[in-house]
Amino acid sequence: MTDHPANGLDEIVHQRVRLGIMTIAHQARQVEFAFLRTTLQLTAGNLGQHLAVLEKAGLIRIEKGYEGKRTCTWVTLTAAGQAALRAEIAQLKQLIQQVEEGAAATAADP
Amino acid sequence: MTDHPANGLDEIVHQRVRLGIMTIAHQARQVEFAFLRTTLQLTAGNLGQHLAVLEKAGLIRIEKGYEGKRTCTWVTLTAAGQAALRAEIAQLKQLIQQVEEGAAATAADP
Repeated sequence: MTDHPANGLDEIVHQRVRLGIMTIAHQARQVEFAFLRTTLQLTAGNLGQHLAVLEKAGLIRIEKGYEGKRTCTWVTLTAAGQAALRAEIAQLKQLIQQVEEGAAATAADP
Repeated sequence: MTDHPANGLDEIVHQRVRLGIMTIAHQARQVEFAFLRTTLQLTAGNLGQHLAVLEKAGLIRIEKGYEGKRTCTWVTLTAAGQAALRAEIAQLKQLIQQVEEGAAATAADP
């Protein structure tokens, strides 16, 4: 039996909030902390925790800076982050295909 | 701004192992505990915990029975489970579309 697509999902990337962060960072190239917080409807603490997980895994880069007088935190996907997001999307597509094929022979009752 | 697809993901269904359980149950109509455990490479304890979360949420039905002398535990998606899996797939497709469209105007740096 081939490996089930769910086994190939990386929980660091697949987790709902982190998948949202990586999707937005991918779209925007570089995205501000406040934008992520508003878009994903998170508290600053919760967003900060998820960003720390992604940074520790080497999937995002976090940079602090200024916009006028305001301090800003910018989030960018690293090359490893781009690759991890591509891998997640590929696994999800396989999983969606399995769902849409319905009762597939490989997973039928024995 | 329209709501980000990650916000519409239900963590009960989206969690990696439970998404695997629901996908397999959807494909097989009714699936045996041991089949899930092998396919998703889980310990019995871990699988049992995730099944309990899904059952409590009304997304699966668990039935115990016999096959010959062997006791069996069968898992079936409920109508609510089928609907929840469809909703998850629809959200994932939106999210994949956003990733594949790349730098979308709606999520660009301000």
